[in-house]
Amino acid sequence: MTDRPLRSWVAAANDAGCDFPIQNLPYGVFSVEGQAPRCGVAIGNMVLDLAECEARGLLDVKGAFGRPDLNDFIDQGRGIWNDVRAKLTALLAEDGDRSLPLVPMADATLHLPIRVTEFTDFYASKNHAFNVGVLFRGPDNALPPQWTHMPIGYNGRASSVVVSGTAIRRPMGQIKGENGPVWSASRRLDLELELGAIVGASSQMGQRISVEEAEDMIFGYVLLNDWSARDIQAWEYQPLGPFQAKALGTTISPWVVTQAALEPFRSAGAERLNPLLPYLQEERPGFYDLTLGWTMNGQTMAQTNYNVMYYSSAQQLAHHAVSGCPMRVGDLLGTGTISGPELDQTGALLEMTQGGKKPVQIQGGERTFIEDGDEIGLFGYAEKDGYRIGFGPCTGKILPAQE
Amino acid sequence: MTDRPLRSWVAAANDAGCDFPIQNLPYGVFSVEGQAPRCGVAIGNMVLDLAECEARGLLDVKGAFGRPDLNDFIDQGRGIWNDVRAKLTALLAEDGDRSLPLVPMADATLHLPIRVTEFTDFYASKNHAFNVGVLFRGPDNALPPQWTHMPIGYNGRASSVVVSGTAIRRPMGQIKGENGPVWSASRRLDLELELGAIVGASSQMGQRISVEEAEDMIFGYVLLNDWSARDIQAWEYQPLGPFQAKALGTTISPWVVTQAALEPFRSAGAERLNPLLPYLQEERPGFYDLTLGWTMNGQTMAQTNYNVMYYSSAQQLAHHAVSGCPMRVGDLLGTGTISGPELDQTGALLEMTQGGKKPVQIQGGERTFIEDGDEIGLFGYAEKDGYRIGFGPCTGKILPAQE
Repeated sequence: MTDRPLRSWVAAANDAGCDFPIQNLPYGVFSVEGQAPRCGVAIGNMVLDLAECEARGLLDVKGAFGRPDLNDFIDQGRGIWNDVRAKLTALLAEDGDRSLPLVPMADATLHLPIRVTEFTDFYASKNHAFNVGVLFRGPDNALPPQWTHMPIGYNGRASSVVVSGTAIRRPMGQIKGENGPVWSASRRLDLELELGAIVGASSQMGQRISVEEAEDMIFGYVLLNDWSARDIQAWEYQPLGPFQAKALGTTISPWVVTQAALEPFRSAGAERLNPLLPYLQEERPGFYDLTLGWTMNGQTMAQTNYNVMYYSSAQQLAHHAVSGCPMRVGDLLGTGTISGPELDQTGALLEMTQGGKKPVQIQGGERTFIEDGDEIGLFGYAEKDGYRIGFGPCTGKILPAQE
Repeated sequence: MTDRPLRSWVAAANDAGCDFPIQNLPYGVFSVEGQAPRCGVAIGNMVLDLAECEARGLLDVKGAFGRPDLNDFIDQGRGIWNDVRAKLTALLAEDGDRSLPLVPMADATLHLPIRVTEFTDFYASKNHAFNVGVLFRGPDNALPPQWTHMPIGYNGRASSVVVSGTAIRRPMGQIKGENGPVWSASRRLDLELELGAIVGASSQMGQRISVEEAEDMIFGYVLLNDWSARDIQAWEYQPLGPFQAKALGTTISPWVVTQAALEPFRSAGAERLNPLLPYLQEERPGFYDLTLGWTMNGQTMAQTNYNVMYYSSAQQLAHHAVSGCPMRVGDLLGTGTISGPELDQTGALLEMTQGGKKPVQIQGGERTFIEDGDEIGLFGYAEKDGYRIGFGPCTGKILPAQE
């Protein structure tokens, strides 16, 4: 006998293919006209006003839901996360409280869900690392020697993280010319399909974190598009890594899907090529069976799965603190570009077009890189027993450069 | 006729060689027993309690001096910076207000002066870039091809920035062994002698900043020691740049020396090797004639000058925003290691010992890299007309690794 999945009294939450059934309950920050931004939960086609729920005495998070970001709530710890999730599940179930303060999602403006304290981006898909390595450094040096031993990452720029729907300006910068650099708009603008893990607990300076502890410190995940100017990157990135090529903007989804919602989809990742040092070994699979993909101007370009990845977010977090680096609530850890082995599974145009050499066909034309006016969307969902844990949209449209 | 320099009624401020004469007036955050941290200014051997000055109606910064960091004050803009500096100069001059609330510096605990929003570190000394390049990549690839065209930098970790006096733990991590990586305490722990520029005004996403505007956006400077684990760095840093090798801690001085105090010491930097693109060209010299050096266990090891540098902080800030990256009040921009051409002018042991091959003699022994229990101190000052603009101490002692 299969249990019938839990249903909500919010009718749209029970629709097949709805991203936000009662099993999901992702957190975000929203506003309606005339009101300050506050925290909410997506349910079906509605947003539940959590600040109002707290005002009514239905939840108690010491006023954190009245804040314009989730950080204060997240900082209260896993006990409170579990408690609030259980209460929301009861309130929204078929026999729940039909007087809850719901706002139609169509009437809500969605904001950046967290105040991003710091942003780190990793490089954890072997397919992506190899493909990009070939293009930047040739096949002999494609995969860096330490790649199978540690999750390689770099610190990105938190101030340029924006919420889905924010327009992204094509950057100007230095690109390599025949006789030194030239001042130009980027001609090789790209996306990167990623997840972002949100750190939900702090660590002290000098404190290492085990993979198990790291898993417990992750609050949830967003979709993440790390826009990249490949020509600026090629000229600038050696020896200290990418800098302005990655600072034009990083788009995240407005909804944070909790670790709790993803738990039923836990999955092993890519096959391990060599044993890891003990501080990176994990006891149980650290990935999720999560379909991820991206669209250009509404057309699906590629689809892959989070479980192609080599290092989990928990392993990345453990490595991030290995030298004693303090981690904080609100830190955002990008997984790195998620690419499967096939061209229609790649999370970046650089790979899909093999460095811009083989254009891809789209409706009404072809592309090597992103053109002005193009809109890129990411999507992600896990499906099981007739329900879907979705992330909602993560889109951005490219504006022309300002010279 | 030479003007006699301005003197203060705080006697120690007039002593020859005092770091904090009335011409300096650096800002910091301090506390005394039983009181919350608040903003202050160093004068001679005393700290002026700025929160109390505001309570007495002597200054008006909307309560910002009662905060545990300078960010709110800095955010009020250059007009307020100038106004407060003029008022403090009048209050502390010989004919000033002798009833001001002063605390002996010996009784004060000094805290991190700013809430560091993000930390970026550059690589702007040609001597350092060349010397380190030889050691990491050999003489043929020492200076990266873009080095003379742009200030190369990378995003560091803001959470690991600490105030002078904080002990630094030797990190554990992956270092390269004969058959793959080994788990080890770093054996090649190093310092980096730098200045840090504090960004004092925000920019919008998509907004570029001219070098002239950037200069106007800099509030002041601190001494900065970017502790570096060279063996962890060598194994991890390609292709995405240094990560855990630089996350064990970054020490800054408790006193922020303002741009206004340094203005009389303005100086040209290193000779330009080729013309820069217009967005990096500066109209007037962007450096200061500022003596900088470091000590190990109290012994001076090297001394150089800020004006050996190739890119100024204003040029670095302009480049940081070139792709549209938003900058914020409290961003900390490390200049990169400051090294002159001679071994006793180098800002890192890696250079001084030529990659650990030639130990340097110290009292009671020799060193290739930093040993447990060693204390490293930075110093910096500009001198003119009988007064000295100093930064005060910037020290850190190394604790043994925790395995």
